Amino acid sequence: MDQKGYRRGSFQSSTSDEDMLEIAGASVDLSMADDDPPLDREMGGFSTYNGGGMNGKSTMMDFLEEPLPGVGTYEDFNTIDWVREKSRDRDRHREITNRSKESTWALLHSVSDAFSGWLLMLFIGLLAGSLAGLIDISAHWMTDLKEGVCLAGFWFNHEHCCWKSNTTFTDRDKCPEWKSWSQLILGYGEGAFAYILNYFMYVVWALMFSLLAVLLVKGFAPYACGSGIPEIKTILSGFIIRGYLGKWTLVIKTITLVLAVSSGLSLGKEGPLVHVACCCGNILCHLFTKYRKNEAKRREVLSAAAAAGVSVAFGAPIGGVLFSLEEVSYYFPLKTLWRSFFAALVAAFTLRSINPFGNSRLVLFYVEFHMPWHLLELVPFILLGIFGGLWGAFFIRSNIAWCRRRKTTRLGKYPVLEVFVVTAITAILAFPNEYTRMSTSELISELFNDCGILDSSKLCEYVNDFNSTKGDDLPDRAAGPGVYTAMWQLALALIMKVFITIFTFGMKVPSGLFIPSMAVGAIAGRLLGVAVEQLAFYHHDWAIFSGWCSQGADCITPGLYAMVGAAACLGGVTRMTVSLVVIMFELTGGLEYIVPLMAAAMTSKWVADAVGREGIYDAHIRLNGYPFLEAKEEFSHKTRAMDVMRPRKNDPPLTVITQDSMTVEDVETIVTNTTYSGYPVVVSRASQRLVGFVLRRDLIISIENARKKQDGIVSTSIICFTDYCPPLPPSSPSVLKLRSILDLSPFTVTDETPMEIVVDIFRKLGLRQCLVTHNGKLLGIITKKDVLKHIAQMANQDPESILFN
Amino acid sequence: MDQKGYRRGSFQSSTSDEDMLEIAGASVDLSMADDDPPLDREMGGFSTYNGGGMNGKSTMMDFLEEPLPGVGTYEDFNTIDWVREKSRDRDRHREITNRSKESTWALLHSVSDAFSGWLLMLFIGLLAGSLAGLIDISAHWMTDLKEGVCLAGFWFNHEHCCWKSNTTFTDRDKCPEWKSWSQLILGYGEGAFAYILNYFMYVVWALMFSLLAVLLVKGFAPYACGSGIPEIKTILSGFIIRGYLGKWTLVIKTITLVLAVSSGLSLGKEGPLVHVACCCGNILCHLFTKYRKNEAKRREVLSAAAAAGVSVAFGAPIGGVLFSLEEVSYYFPLKTLWRSFFAALVAAFTLRSINPFGNSRLVLFYVEFHMPWHLLELVPFILLGIFGGLWGAFFIRSNIAWCRRRKTTRLGKYPVLEVFVVTAITAILAFPNEYTRMSTSELISELFNDCGILDSSKLCEYVNDFNSTKGDDLPDRAAGPGVYTAMWQLALALIMKVFITIFTFGMKVPSGLFIPSMAVGAIAGRLLGVAVEQLAFYHHDWAIFSGWCSQGADCITPGLYAMVGAAACLGGVTRMTVSLVVIMFELTGGLEYIVPLMAAAMTSKWVADAVGREGIYDAHIRLNGYPFLEAKEEFSHKTRAMDVMRPRKNDPPLTVITQDSMTVEDVETIVTNTTYSGYPVVVSRASQRLVGFVLRRDLIISIENARKKQDGIVSTSIICFTDYCPPLPPSSPSVLKLRSILDLSPFTVTDETPMEIVVDIFRKLGLRQCLVTHNGKLLGIITKKDVLKHIAQMANQDPESILFN
Repeated sequence: MDQKGYRRGSFQSSTSDEDMLEIAGASVDLSMADDDPPLDREMGGFSTYNGGGMNGKSTMMDFLEEPLPGVGTYEDFNTIDWVREKSRDRDRHREITNRSKESTWALLHSVSDAFSGWLLMLFIGLLAGSLAGLIDISAHWMTDLKEGVCLAGFWFNHEHCCWKSNTTFTDRDKCPEWKSWSQLILGYGEGAFAYILNYFMYVVWALMFSLLAVLLVKGFAPYACGSGIPEIKTILSGFIIRGYLGKWTLVIKTITLVLAVSSGLSLGKEGPLVHVACCCGNILCHLFTKYRKNEAKRREVLSAAAAAGVSVAFGAPIGGVLFSLEEVSYYFPLKTLWRSFFAALVAAFTLRSINPFGNSRLVLFYVEFHMPWHLLELVPFILLGIFGGLWGAFFIRSNIAWCRRRKTTRLGKYPVLEVFVVTAITAILAFPNEYTRMSTSELISELFNDCGILDSSKLCEYVNDFNSTKGDDLPDRAAGPGVYTAMWQLALALIMKVFITIFTFGMKVPSGLFIPSMAVGAIAGRLLGVAVEQLAFYHHDWAIFSGWCSQGADCITPGLYAMVGAAACLGGVTRMTVSLVVIMFELTGGLEYIVPLMAAAMTSKWVADAVGREGIYDAHIRLNGYPFLEAKEEFSHKTRAMDVMRPRKNDPPLTVITQDSMTVEDVETIVTNTTYSGYPVVVSRASQRLVGFVLRRDLIISIENARKKQDGIVSTSIICFTDYCPPLPPSSPSVLKLRSILDLSPFTVTDETPMEIVVDIFRKLGLRQCLVTHNGKLLGIITKKDVLKHIAQMANQDPESILFN
Repeated sequence: MDQKGYRRGSFQSSTSDEDMLEIAGASVDLSMADDDPPLDREMGGFSTYNGGGMNGKSTMMDFLEEPLPGVGTYEDFNTIDWVREKSRDRDRHREITNRSKESTWALLHSVSDAFSGWLLMLFIGLLAGSLAGLIDISAHWMTDLKEGVCLAGFWFNHEHCCWKSNTTFTDRDKCPEWKSWSQLILGYGEGAFAYILNYFMYVVWALMFSLLAVLLVKGFAPYACGSGIPEIKTILSGFIIRGYLGKWTLVIKTITLVLAVSSGLSLGKEGPLVHVACCCGNILCHLFTKYRKNEAKRREVLSAAAAAGVSVAFGAPIGGVLFSLEEVSYYFPLKTLWRSFFAALVAAFTLRSINPFGNSRLVLFYVEFHMPWHLLELVPFILLGIFGGLWGAFFIRSNIAWCRRRKTTRLGKYPVLEVFVVTAITAILAFPNEYTRMSTSELISELFNDCGILDSSKLCEYVNDFNSTKGDDLPDRAAGPGVYTAMWQLALALIMKVFITIFTFGMKVPSGLFIPSMAVGAIAGRLLGVAVEQLAFYHHDWAIFSGWCSQGADCITPGLYAMVGAAACLGGVTRMTVSLVVIMFELTGGLEYIVPLMAAAMTSKWVADAVGREGIYDAHIRLNGYPFLEAKEEFSHKTRAMDVMRPRKNDPPLTVITQDSMTVEDVETIVTNTTYSGYPVVVSRASQRLVGFVLRRDLIISIENARKKQDGIVSTSIICFTDYCPPLPPSSPSVLKLRSILDLSPFTVTDETPMEIVVDIFRKLGLRQCLVTHNGKLLGIITKKDVLKHIAQMANQDPESILFN
């Protein structure tokens, strides 16, 4: 069945979607993207959702048999109809339940069907956890490879290498088996030339990794770039992007993610891990008919997979579920809540048993604080919140401006060059400063760390006064020269990270935002923390410190400031609140620190919202023109359905099909002359009383099929959508009955319905289109695209930026 | 305006609601229940939600001014229309935003309006936390009062008394200041007579407390009985029960809760604490116009208050939010998620600063385990899950059967006698067994406890072998005689708790189920845990133990088994999953133990669901016939809208009003002759084309008002719902224009729409009624009650059990 001729049309709205293939800011050749089989085409019966007309038939025929291949499926870059999908699933479920009474085999089938969701979650958890472990281990090894190699085995990373070492050595990380490149090549590691050689090797490795990454992405899976969260949000809201969650994307994203992280670019693996987990979920859906054939059910699985992704990214299963609920998901019934939780737990435990960091923790930056905080410390915490909010808003604006520039100018034509230049700059700037040279997660881990007695890092070089030390508790101490050096280096690192991240996020490599944002916040927080600590140490007699911070007491924990700063910046960029606080809570494990985190996250969100309403993901969704109907924002304008519906005042009237008076030829003419995705069916043109709604795709397939297989169907055959077709003179050709493809329960609203209610209906029920009536007569149609355009227009944005339907 | 004559009617459905006043199984005299001012009557304009007709007017008049008092409000025991409420709130918000540009004062008003939600949450958290602290402290003191009194001050509880003591004494809780009743009266505490006296005093105090509780409930606030969660679920789903969350209920419930808990009945304070927190929320709503005047907004606040209630009940803020989301709430937008979290945190911190248990914990049974668990232990954990599920199902069936008996027989007429008898039996059975004599939370705390070296309780009387002890870790040891005695006593306590709880839950005192359920599970778990521990100790050479439980190792933690058992039983009764696991996680604070808890909770839910679908709260909702549309269950039958709508086939046709041809008298006749709550307005009786929907209440108020205040309105005046009324001969009386009360955007579905979609629409949009059309003609109406009746019918339940509309 050749459908090339029929373009994916928009429902009764006239914008053409020429540029629809531009996803994530990159032109995509679909044939190359992913040759996933068109799953949605092999699907179950068109279901009895259409109402009475099919009840008799459907019970007789096998419900798994295909009445007509293609009927009821979607084309790429189209929006699904949630109501229809959920009805189809209920039909399927009903059929299986009814059958289960007939035989033991059917009963077993019914039970296995009921448990398939849990089984799927188990698989997703196992796969996502394993992949996360693999990514962690590889990235760790390759990051160290930039600095040197292990003689005991090149596959050992630095830490592992020194663990395996039998010889004794003084400094914890300077074992004889680990050779820096200069030691390996020149035979010595000190001196200017060795430094330059190491520098050179560092940059070369970084460039190699990042170029390999961008070439792989460009060559094999263009969808593998970016963080993937904006697209996943859009897909979960009911949009179809074939191949975005396919197996090629999974393989390439996993590989290139390791490369990109190892290259030292200012990006993280946390966002892309969500994409990887969703790919796992989508691919594993193929194992179960229930999920393979139903777009709505599959999206429930993807919501859970997103939770599993965050769970392994941060070692926070509960935070992952809340992230999926708060940030990513669109339709999140309670069943999905339970399953997400299960998947997130399985994933976390799989990762823990792989133990990528050798400390039975799920993340590199797990922390344990011991000291309580004082109420007055809320002031610096709120300051950090303000900083985070401002940085978030600044970052979003700059990044979107840069991405728009990339999209609209010739810059976008040279993604490889862009990656090369950014990597080179990053690597050259990063090497001299030890805090940018180390991987960003290690940096965060060091910043979160509360200095103990044995800590040898520069950040912990305090002037020790062992007389005042009691037990394990270290009092606040004067900062030594190491701390001051570290402060300067951190300040430089902060400036570098702030700017380079703007140019990094959006390049054609997998890139997450969580880690760079957290790094910026953690640096700022640690700087502030040390400042407050020293202030309290030198001026503990000041009124603000007296009473809670006497001399020799440990009252300020700079690590906590770093953590609060990280939460603030992450909150400013993503506008997460509860899930952010819960993730951080799971990292620290203490209820104590929820209040500082909450204060910072809330302040950050308010400040950032005051500057610009959108979080980074929503901004990218808008930049790319995806049809995403935001569930968080209330539509607050006073327009009515009649202002939004098509046709507008001076447009030609709505294209309709009558229920029993049009011929095959008439209908084919309408289909050829218009590009709409569906047509209302009315009693007669004169009365305009609505009978139902028929989809263009179903109509084309059915007519074509009837012409081929059914006797007596010619161009002059009458198409009849009613139950009982009017008697015709015997000479006339036989009637084509199409009641089975007619949706007898289209959603309707009156023309006076306020748009806020229409938006609510679209959002809550997941509609694709809605018909508008006045006093019982059909007036027009509103599609999801019309709603989105209207919202954009009301927000003074370009309504034409909404590309897809 | 006397409205007594007009009864609250059902929309086009014919069941009368004679028994509507029976709430929570008790006949309620409304005049006594709570004299809350009828808040809903003083409300904002009927809003421009009605569409174009009012646009002109509403911009001219003050939106806070009342166009007609009572228009747009609800009567008691009616269902709210979420769509209308939300529209009204959006109108209000729009108006404030528009005005904010006019003056600084209005801008300030707008800002304060935006922050009022957060302020309200702060107040709720503070109040709920304080009340919880008060309840904890008082209950603790009064529970101890049953056994003795403190000479240093009668207001000290046992623990506090011994803390204050200056004299030295050997046993931790046997200080000279604390006197048992026999010591106080007879001068000695040993011997048979002293025992009998103490026994007697225990029973007398218990009876006094419980009788006082039931008399207070009966006399002042009949709504204060029970756990309140079923009613809160119903209220949150959009039902109105005046006074259920009023100030009298709050005061009486707080007092009687303390009395009921102290009386030693088998009940907990956790469920009622949710009710108390919701009362706080409802009362504090009066401070802010935004929440006072809008039923939908108020329900958002109540959802957050429920979260705060659980937060203080279990010291689990995140668990509280998830409980509210999973179990209680109906409409839970993201904004509410954030606010709930905030309220829950504030409440938890308020309670912590009150520090009722003197250990800076929020609950009595906070635990810390140190040992990991082994995968094989999942077998006993799953066994506990099965036990929990079976017990849950058994409990629900028996309790519902008993409550139904109470409702239908003369038993319900003697609530005081019932409480007297149950308390007497409980107290008489409880005293001899030390595990039932102590308060249930203390029992749970002891069962959860991991035995340390210094623990002196009987449960920790193991045979110590100090040779094999290394450091703090205690190896598994042989049980001493104390443990065996404790096992017998616990087994007896288990049997007693299992049966007595069935008769306790549902009496006319505040009674929560969480604690008794957890106690049953904890006892069963501890018994199994000790059994497994002894098995492992004596048979560590068995294949199942070899490899992970060698001699002298600490491999089994009986306290963990108690915790898992508690989770399983609580899950079996309430069918919570995620929130349950998160609450338990917050109690233990270790991610380690999530998997055992999850396994037990899931098993328990599956087993219990296999026996009976409903959790205890849903069962009580159905028992009381509340109009609650369950969001968790999918409607899975194949009926269509035409099968459910009224009028049915042989009924008289639908009562309609025409848009411009009926007189005031005609309409008044319709209103008098029918009891429906609303009437569709059509173009003409012949065409049956739908124009809008008008509510009975609004119609009555408007006509009455017009007759009084408007000149020329007589019985023969034409009522006109259109924009432009048809010209009339000059002799005829003036026309009554009622477009402003007409809802121009009623929800419609076609007659062929499957009921599953109709149910979905009702659920998601919170509708009260929906009109049914066929080919553009009005056919009938479906109300929420019709939907609920239909669901009951399909589930083979008595459809007449749905009482309210």
